[in-house]
Amino acid sequence: MKAFQDTIIALATPAGSGAIGIIRLSGPEAVMLVNRFFEGKFKSKDLPFLPSHTIHLGYIKEGSKILDEVLVSLFKNPHSYTGEDVVEISVHGSPYIQQQILQLFLKNGVRHAKAGEFTLRAFLNGKMDLSQAEAVADLIASNSETSHQLALQQMRGGFSSEIKKLRDELIRFASLMELELDFAEEDVEFADRQQFKDLVQRIKLILKHLVDSFATGNALKEGVPVAIVGEPNVGKSTLLNALLNEERAIVSHIAGTTRDVIEDELVLDGVRFRFIDTAGIREAQDEIEQIGIRKTYEKIKEAKVVVFLIDACALSLSARCHTPEHDIVLKQFEAELKNITQKYPDKKILIVVNKIDKMDQKDYEIDRDIYSLIEISAKHKTGLEHLKNELVSLVNKGLLDQNEVVVSNARHYQALNDALQSVLQVENGLESELSGDLLSIDIRAALHSLGEITGEITTDDLLDNIFRNFCIGK
Amino acid sequence: MKAFQDTIIALATPAGSGAIGIIRLSGPEAVMLVNRFFEGKFKSKDLPFLPSHTIHLGYIKEGSKILDEVLVSLFKNPHSYTGEDVVEISVHGSPYIQQQILQLFLKNGVRHAKAGEFTLRAFLNGKMDLSQAEAVADLIASNSETSHQLALQQMRGGFSSEIKKLRDELIRFASLMELELDFAEEDVEFADRQQFKDLVQRIKLILKHLVDSFATGNALKEGVPVAIVGEPNVGKSTLLNALLNEERAIVSHIAGTTRDVIEDELVLDGVRFRFIDTAGIREAQDEIEQIGIRKTYEKIKEAKVVVFLIDACALSLSARCHTPEHDIVLKQFEAELKNITQKYPDKKILIVVNKIDKMDQKDYEIDRDIYSLIEISAKHKTGLEHLKNELVSLVNKGLLDQNEVVVSNARHYQALNDALQSVLQVENGLESELSGDLLSIDIRAALHSLGEITGEITTDDLLDNIFRNFCIGK
Repeated sequence: MKAFQDTIIALATPAGSGAIGIIRLSGPEAVMLVNRFFEGKFKSKDLPFLPSHTIHLGYIKEGSKILDEVLVSLFKNPHSYTGEDVVEISVHGSPYIQQQILQLFLKNGVRHAKAGEFTLRAFLNGKMDLSQAEAVADLIASNSETSHQLALQQMRGGFSSEIKKLRDELIRFASLMELELDFAEEDVEFADRQQFKDLVQRIKLILKHLVDSFATGNALKEGVPVAIVGEPNVGKSTLLNALLNEERAIVSHIAGTTRDVIEDELVLDGVRFRFIDTAGIREAQDEIEQIGIRKTYEKIKEAKVVVFLIDACALSLSARCHTPEHDIVLKQFEAELKNITQKYPDKKILIVVNKIDKMDQKDYEIDRDIYSLIEISAKHKTGLEHLKNELVSLVNKGLLDQNEVVVSNARHYQALNDALQSVLQVENGLESELSGDLLSIDIRAALHSLGEITGEITTDDLLDNIFRNFCIGK
Repeated sequence: MKAFQDTIIALATPAGSGAIGIIRLSGPEAVMLVNRFFEGKFKSKDLPFLPSHTIHLGYIKEGSKILDEVLVSLFKNPHSYTGEDVVEISVHGSPYIQQQILQLFLKNGVRHAKAGEFTLRAFLNGKMDLSQAEAVADLIASNSETSHQLALQQMRGGFSSEIKKLRDELIRFASLMELELDFAEEDVEFADRQQFKDLVQRIKLILKHLVDSFATGNALKEGVPVAIVGEPNVGKSTLLNALLNEERAIVSHIAGTTRDVIEDELVLDGVRFRFIDTAGIREAQDEIEQIGIRKTYEKIKEAKVVVFLIDACALSLSARCHTPEHDIVLKQFEAELKNITQKYPDKKILIVVNKIDKMDQKDYEIDRDIYSLIEISAKHKTGLEHLKNELVSLVNKGLLDQNEVVVSNARHYQALNDALQSVLQVENGLESELSGDLLSIDIRAALHSLGEITGEITTDDLLDNIFRNFCIGK
């Protein structure tokens, strides 16, 4: 355990007026210093002699002047968030008072904590590994059920324990390999090459799987990208607005909900959807001429889900709404659909028939064996529930497996990818019966990459990069 | 003690992202309900069997789904803020998670707390009197040292214990008086009239003193009103900007300070100053013709401190800067000053000589025995420290006596005034040897008014009025 000499302080609750504010101190002097300015109402002993995980009512005083009536919570080393002595002072939620109390301690040898410094200490003191520490920030930033669950899973260590296991096995082989190098002249093999090949094979598959899971993890964290495509005037903009506005109305009905609704994002059953290039959709009305297949493809490339709109009249057999131009539209639609499914076989496609209000009955036809159709009228807001349910079930069926470990952090993805490349080198090396000293280089590189995820290997730059994105007080 | 049947919940920390958020529950079911959804990491017993003022690490779970890793703080009836069982759940500072946990409890029989409802319960359960409860809101809203100290003093009960003592003595006499009424036919006097007169005299003086203290208390709480007056172009606007901007620069230097700087307010050495009618000052440049003595007087009427600006050249004896027009300016200044001191003898006046930069030496004169002059150049920002020190010392000397009980709450002022009027009636009645039953009416009125301050007498309307100004969660 790394022992820090200095004691840090920060406001841990959001800035602003409220009922309660929490000021948090951590470090070797935390308990003693708070004790110096604390006058208990009922306590008979000094704070250093009181047990951990207890709460004490009293005053914070500067000389004879009372700064506030407070509750002091004690967490004694190592049974605290940071692993050090931690004191949380629950003060009245007045920014003025909070500043007064912060200043009192800052004047008396406590240092203002940097962003994420409490969590950094927790990591350096071995209370959590690096990927767990990163999950804390993700948890605070989580704004949908899926991003929340991903962060919790990561914080509880499911992901890093898998990485650690792989790394430990790899280390065992690496040390045998290093041993061989020490006895190089005697030409012995401590590390069984076949066993090693099997291990490398297994590690490769797991890493591949984790690397692949990032596409999903990232989508779940940042929002599943959805492209709404279709010919001009088919109702893309109307549909988007109908989806977003309806949800917005629901959100504002829940008492106490004040979450910011981000333009063009939609949370359905806890899954965040992000509509891509919607600015384009909104402007689509007056770009009838320009919009082309090329533009559509660009959108689809980014998307995980494609909502492909088609005018009901184009599919209609009734001459009442089906005009000769609809023949062209329909042909183009079929051609594009074919193209998309061939070019991007992994995209989930929802075919949505819009403007069904224009027909008295379902006088249209399409090959229902290939595509399931969702019938809506964006204008009259009918069929939207069906569409939403389909969106959610696509994600639940196809993208998210509840018990699977999913990588959602770009840094982890990078490190896993690096590890995978090194493991592939090791595999090649084993195939071509490379010498131990050359194999060792790639093994070490893989160990390094894996170690970076859990923080067994860190640099100051890396830690800086991670923790500067935290809020102060965490 | 009033027992509430329902358990209430609210977010007690400011809304928004931060390291920590606190969700607070209070009521008979608080501990049991949290226990139902809490899975401790280390605790061996259920929460209801664990001691008060202890903290427990664990998870809040909805079914098998973890909502968050939390700390649960237990406060057991009557040793809590509200006097009921209180549980504080320290959760990650994500608005999403906070909403999830709030919704979980709201779905399970807990009601969302109304503004100030925790404090209302504390009052109704006898944990604090009404004036102390009001001080809690003042404390949270406090934004200067003086408003902060006033609120703390009131919250600690200094003011209400004085009121209670007066009321108890008055009650003793009232009951003797009522007793006399019961024996009215026998014409006895249980209540010694001379003693009663002495008491009424004493109460009258104390009430008068408290009523008078409101002018000061209100000024300290809301900001000491300062009027900057003087002829057009004497530099009122430049001075105001120099004062405000300089302070603003200092504020932004203190690390972590994010307090909102309110236009036209200035906190010096913990005392808040409020510049009145500064919009007028700022526009003054182009209203040379209109500005007149009447307008100046209006401003002065509202002020506690008058900063009276005079052009250095007007006082100068040197022809280099003293023009013939300055003769008129000087005459007008002297006439106004005389007028003000006669009309408003209680105003503190600071005479500030501006534009001293225009003179090589102090070639001006004024009767220094009557006025102490403060020499500044608003434009070059010289002498401002001197002016600020004078402002603060005026307040400290004249307005604020550290150990005095000061009324700062408009409701208390109203009630004290009502009580004073009733006591004056009682005094008159005693003088004119009014009968006991008539005296009783006024005594009861005085008791009622005093009781309203501490909350011994309340109505739903009164409580509504007071607590709806609280934030939710307090």
